[in-house]
Amino acid sequence: MHCAALQLAQHLPLSIILIMEKITASIITIGDELLIGQVVDTNSAWMAGELIKAGIWVNHRVAVGDIWNDIWKVLDEESRSAHIILITGGLGPTADDITKPLLCEYFGGKMIVDEAALANVKNIFENILKRPMLERNLQQAEVPDCCTVIQNKRGTAPGMWFEKAGRIFVSMPGVPNEMKGMMSDDIIPLLLKHFTLPFIMHKTLLTAGIGESFLAEHIKEFEASLPGHIKIAYLPNYGMLRLRLTSSGENKKELEKELYNRFDVLKHLVAEWMVIDDDKTMQEAIGKLLLSKNKTIGTAESCTGGYIAHLITTVPGSSAYYKGSVVSYANETKKNVLHVNSQTLETVGAVSEETVCQMAKGALELLDTDYIIATSGIMGPDGGTPEKPAGTVWMAVGTKKKIIAQKFYFRFDRIRNIELTATYALNMARKSIIES
Amino acid sequence: MHCAALQLAQHLPLSIILIMEKITASIITIGDELLIGQVVDTNSAWMAGELIKAGIWVNHRVAVGDIWNDIWKVLDEESRSAHIILITGGLGPTADDITKPLLCEYFGGKMIVDEAALANVKNIFENILKRPMLERNLQQAEVPDCCTVIQNKRGTAPGMWFEKAGRIFVSMPGVPNEMKGMMSDDIIPLLLKHFTLPFIMHKTLLTAGIGESFLAEHIKEFEASLPGHIKIAYLPNYGMLRLRLTSSGENKKELEKELYNRFDVLKHLVAEWMVIDDDKTMQEAIGKLLLSKNKTIGTAESCTGGYIAHLITTVPGSSAYYKGSVVSYANETKKNVLHVNSQTLETVGAVSEETVCQMAKGALELLDTDYIIATSGIMGPDGGTPEKPAGTVWMAVGTKKKIIAQKFYFRFDRIRNIELTATYALNMARKSIIES
Repeated sequence: MHCAALQLAQHLPLSIILIMEKITASIITIGDELLIGQVVDTNSAWMAGELIKAGIWVNHRVAVGDIWNDIWKVLDEESRSAHIILITGGLGPTADDITKPLLCEYFGGKMIVDEAALANVKNIFENILKRPMLERNLQQAEVPDCCTVIQNKRGTAPGMWFEKAGRIFVSMPGVPNEMKGMMSDDIIPLLLKHFTLPFIMHKTLLTAGIGESFLAEHIKEFEASLPGHIKIAYLPNYGMLRLRLTSSGENKKELEKELYNRFDVLKHLVAEWMVIDDDKTMQEAIGKLLLSKNKTIGTAESCTGGYIAHLITTVPGSSAYYKGSVVSYANETKKNVLHVNSQTLETVGAVSEETVCQMAKGALELLDTDYIIATSGIMGPDGGTPEKPAGTVWMAVGTKKKIIAQKFYFRFDRIRNIELTATYALNMARKSIIES
Repeated sequence: MHCAALQLAQHLPLSIILIMEKITASIITIGDELLIGQVVDTNSAWMAGELIKAGIWVNHRVAVGDIWNDIWKVLDEESRSAHIILITGGLGPTADDITKPLLCEYFGGKMIVDEAALANVKNIFENILKRPMLERNLQQAEVPDCCTVIQNKRGTAPGMWFEKAGRIFVSMPGVPNEMKGMMSDDIIPLLLKHFTLPFIMHKTLLTAGIGESFLAEHIKEFEASLPGHIKIAYLPNYGMLRLRLTSSGENKKELEKELYNRFDVLKHLVAEWMVIDDDKTMQEAIGKLLLSKNKTIGTAESCTGGYIAHLITTVPGSSAYYKGSVVSYANETKKNVLHVNSQTLETVGAVSEETVCQMAKGALELLDTDYIIATSGIMGPDGGTPEKPAGTVWMAVGTKKKIIAQKFYFRFDRIRNIELTATYALNMARKSIIES
C-alpha cells in the first residue's frame, strides 16, 4: 500500500498523505454461490457503508469460492494491504462451508466448544424454531480457541475476532441480518476502540432528471475548487444521481463548518434537480413532504405492477400518508375498478394520455387521497407496436383539481424500465406536491 | 466438495491439476461507489452466471476504487491466477473515471479516436437523447490503439479487448444493460472462439419451506454418492433454497445422460418441498401453472404493499394470467374497496384471520379472478404490540369456493419481512392452485 502510495506521487501527490493516514479494510466474501452467479452480494455494500461512516476506508472487496487454498491465499494477500480483514460467509451448517476449520488452521488454533454459543444454538432450536437439533447444528457452537467469540443474537453461527501481526480479522455469518446486527452491535464499536480513526463526515444530496456528465459539467468549477481533503462522489442509480461530499481530518469543528459551507454552495448549484438535501431515497423525500403538508397519496398502476406502491411502503411509517393502490394490470380491472371508459380503451388504447388520466381520476375518487400517481405503458420485451414500442409509458400525477400527464420512452430491459418508470413517476408526483 | 478442498490443503499438486483443467476468470469491478457502500454490485453475479454457463469458472471477484495504483496492482494480481480478466466500470465521462487511460498505459498503447465509436456517440446524442454533446462525451470514443474495440449498442462507452502474455483482458462499461448486452452479443461468443472449453451442464430446482441444514441432512447420502465431476450447490434465498447440480467434462452425451439421472433422483428426494424442477423463480413457477390451467390470479395486499404484485408482474407475459391487485394499506381502503367489515377491523383488527379472509373474498369479487392472495401484517420496525409483535402476518389464498388462511411470524428487518411474506404467500398460492 505504502510503496504504491510512493508511485502514486507522480499522479496525485496529495493522496499519499491520505493513504498514510488511513485505516483500511478489505472485505472478503466466501461462498461458491457468489461465483456461480446465483446470489447478489448485498452485504459488502452495506459493510462498506458502515465502515466509511466509522472512518475506515475499504480499499478492496474480494469474493472467493469455498476452496481451501483460494481462501488461504486471499487472507494472505488482503492482510498485506489492509489493517482490517472482514470475512463473511462459509459458516453455514452444510458440508461446503469450510471457513471455520480453515481459520482455525490459519491462526494455529484448535477447535473447542464455546458454551455461550452452544446455549444460543440450543435456545434458537428449542424456543424459536421449535425443531429438533441436528449434530451439524451443534457444531456451529465450535470455535477456534485462538479467537475472541462474538455471539450471534440473530442466528446460530457465532462471529470470530482474530489478531495476527497487527492485523484484525473478523469472521461473520453471511446471512444479511445476522451480519448487520453483529457489525452494528459489536464489531464497529470494537474497531473504534482498537484504532484511533480520523474524523469522517459525509453530506449527501439526491438529484433527478439530469445525466451524470451534464451535472459534472455544471459543477466543474465547484469540483475543481474543493480542497484535497474534501472529495465528491457521483452515485448514479435508476435515473437519479446522488452527490456525496466526504471530508476527513482531525479537527471536527473546522471540518463540519467547512463541509456545511461547501454543501450549501452545491445545493444552490443543483437546486433545479435536487430531490432532497439528505442521504434519503425519492420515496423518503415524498413521505417527508406529505407529512409536512399532512396530505395523503395513492397510486393506480398498470405497467409498474405495484412497484411504486412497494417503494412507497418500504418506508417505515408510510401508512401515515399512503392509503393504497389499484394495480389495474388487466383492462377489465381498469374498467371495473377505476371506471376507465371502455371506448377510450378501444379507441386510443390502455397506453394513452386519456387512459392514464382516467385511471388517476378513478383512483383519486376510490382511494379518496389528496394526490395520485398513475402509470400505463409497455415494459417489454413483448407487447410493443410500431406506434407504441416497448418502453413507451404514459404517467399522470395530480389532485382532484388538476391532473397532468406526460409520455416517456425507456429503452432498457423489463425490470429496468419498471424501475425507471417508478422513479420518473415519483419525481413528477414530488414536483406536483411542492407546486400545489 | 469439502473433502476435495481438504485434500487440496495437504496435497498441493491436486489443486494444480484442477486449475490446469479449468479456464478461469476474474471479475474486476472498478469504482469508488462500490467501496463507499452506496451501490450494490449486481453486475458480477450476472457475469459469473453467464461465464459458468459457457464453461468458464470464476475464481475471484474483486472490487477496487478509482485509484490508479490499486487498479494496476489488481490487474497484475488477477492475471497471475486467471486466464480471463473481465473489468467493468470506470469508463464514465466524469473526472473520477480513470480506467481507460490506465489500460492504455498498462498495455503500452496510445489513445486514438475510434470512428465507429464516435459515430455511435454522435448518433445517441442526436437521435436518442436529442441533447447537445459535450467535449467529455466525445472523449468516450477514444480508445487505446492496442485493443480490439467492442462497439456499445446501448450506450456511449465502447468495450475494449486486450491480449497480453496469453491472458485476455476485457473492459466494459458498468451500466448493467450495456454490460449485459456486450457480454451476450460479443464477449461470450469471442471467448468461446478463443478457448477450447469443457462441456458444462447445470440442472437446478427450487425448493421452499425447508431449511438448508435439514435439506442437506435429508440428501446427505445422495450428496456423498455424487461422482467428483458432479457438484451440488445450495443456494438459499428469501425462504427458498435452490439446488444446483453442475457437471463438467468432455463427453457431452454421457454427461447429459448421467446428470439427468442424478437430477431425477434428487427431484424425488425433495419432491415434498419442490417448487419447480427448473432454474426459475417462484413467480415464474406460478405463471407456468396458471397458464397450463388457463386460470387467473389477483392479489389483495396490505403489509406487502404491492410487492407480490410487483414480483408477479416482473415475469414477461404475466398479463395473460394476472388481473391486478388492491393494495389496501389503509383500513379505509380495506373497507371502501375490499368491503372488509368495519366491526371486524374494530374488534379483531386488521392483522387477523377474519380481515385477511374478507380481503381475499372482496378482491376475488372485485377483480373476478380464479385465485387470490391476501396479506395483512406488521412489517416493523414499529407498529407491533405484545399480542401482535412486528413480524406477525396473516395470509390467505384460495378461490371463490374455498379460502384458507395461515399465520406467520418473521423476525427480520422491514424489507426482509416483506420479501419473506411475499415468498410464503406465493408458495401457499402455488399449493392451492395445484390442489384445486
